[in-house]
Amino acid sequence: MARTVYVNGEYLPETEAKVSIFDRGFLFADGVYEVTSVLDGKLIDFAGHAKRLQRSLDELQMANPVTEDELLGIHRELVRLNDIDEGLIYLQITRGAADRDFAFPKDPVPTIVLFTQAKPGLAQNPMAKTGMKVISIEDQRWGRRDIKTVQLLYPSLGKMMAKAAGADDAWMVEDGHVTEGTSNNAYIVKGNTIITRHLGTEILHGITRVAVLRFAREAQMTVEERPFTVDEAKAADEAFITSASSFVMPVVEMDGAPIGTGKPGHVTARLREIYLDEMRRAAI
Amino acid sequence: MARTVYVNGEYLPETEAKVSIFDRGFLFADGVYEVTSVLDGKLIDFAGHAKRLQRSLDELQMANPVTEDELLGIHRELVRLNDIDEGLIYLQITRGAADRDFAFPKDPVPTIVLFTQAKPGLAQNPMAKTGMKVISIEDQRWGRRDIKTVQLLYPSLGKMMAKAAGADDAWMVEDGHVTEGTSNNAYIVKGNTIITRHLGTEILHGITRVAVLRFAREAQMTVEERPFTVDEAKAADEAFITSASSFVMPVVEMDGAPIGTGKPGHVTARLREIYLDEMRRAAI
Repeated sequence: MARTVYVNGEYLPETEAKVSIFDRGFLFADGVYEVTSVLDGKLIDFAGHAKRLQRSLDELQMANPVTEDELLGIHRELVRLNDIDEGLIYLQITRGAADRDFAFPKDPVPTIVLFTQAKPGLAQNPMAKTGMKVISIEDQRWGRRDIKTVQLLYPSLGKMMAKAAGADDAWMVEDGHVTEGTSNNAYIVKGNTIITRHLGTEILHGITRVAVLRFAREAQMTVEERPFTVDEAKAADEAFITSASSFVMPVVEMDGAPIGTGKPGHVTARLREIYLDEMRRAAI
Repeated sequence: MARTVYVNGEYLPETEAKVSIFDRGFLFADGVYEVTSVLDGKLIDFAGHAKRLQRSLDELQMANPVTEDELLGIHRELVRLNDIDEGLIYLQITRGAADRDFAFPKDPVPTIVLFTQAKPGLAQNPMAKTGMKVISIEDQRWGRRDIKTVQLLYPSLGKMMAKAAGADDAWMVEDGHVTEGTSNNAYIVKGNTIITRHLGTEILHGITRVAVLRFAREAQMTVEERPFTVDEAKAADEAFITSASSFVMPVVEMDGAPIGTGKPGHVTARLREIYLDEMRRAAI
């Protein structure tokens, strides 16, 4: 059955969901996005995503075509229309269509697109038990990774490099330090200390990251927000990633060498459990 | 009158020219492009653009949906249908539409889009007589600028920074050295020597650049392909840019200070004249 998606005010069958070839999202990657998880048919941390969306738009002087309430309504209607119990809602806003010019158009009308991806078993992902394998690759992305733009070609290439190497994902490295995964924030654990890169323009300000670090501190774990090296990662007791779609996911191997015992660690497992419990409770 | 554009095998009115919201060009900036100039209703350096297009596609393991002959036919048909005497033909190929996933889809069907932009007076651009003003900005683009992808958000932001500063364009600077303009290659002239950055992953391998450097050497000018600093540019006798749409265009001011006499220089004017003469003659 074809999905029902949302395009500029209309709910449409996915086969009819189109944008102009002059859309600046298509011609210039002049657009931003968010991905919100759905568990038990409810939205996980919708407010966090709406807030970051507004920040991305502001950074690019792009207009927001909808209020937060309208956006919530569209998310819920898509969940209902597509009968999503577990899955994702993807949202993209671009500067809109205009004749091609590097300069922004005057008075552009933003394009807004949302669609669902059903992911049955999202919270029971078997990878949480086995752990992921990552490779390290050079971070070749642009300088403003804190803005969640659709300039995702390098992360996509990174994912393919990982697959080619028999791994699940790639951790990107800049000046010897890990920035993040292709679509997730990266963490290592040493003893009772969780280490993850500090916020800045070098990484995405993960919505899941905020919640997980809060839960970690509430659970009396020590959190160090600082750059860490590939060697530190390889010598860590545990490693994991966080993202809206994977929640907290253990990383058990890097560049072919086991991390810690080579199995998902206790700190990671506990954080995943706390995160899922707390976020299910707060879902709307 | 609405333009006629080309989308995946069909010639359509521009208002009907659309791509799926699932197109990876829209969701991941997973696409490449070319812009070919038209003078006297003929294509300038079509073979050069077709060759670079193939290189961009190869670098991204993306299929080319058309042969070079077919591409030439589409270009010519668009010139005819839209009665273009002077203007541009924009071409974009993406990996095609697929449910959203960072990993490439299996057996994707590439999307191909072409449209024209009529630019009467393109060769007689009055800026060739007055010169352009540029500002210097940090180069924040991704690492593979030699691949002509649609990840153009930063160049677009750079163009807006230039406009905000009362200038025409921005030259991007990395590690103290100029890489290139937002959509053009950058050159300075000192005495009889033309200096422009060497080819590498840091800059686009300009089609116009190849021709202009050849003409410069044939005219007994000295060409140095090496990085140059902002200070060198400010102390130069002349400066200019090259691109498919601006040909050879003088730069007379940088960051508010005049370059050389503050007027278009003789070397630049001569190169522009040679380029236009030779390329009109070779146009197809």
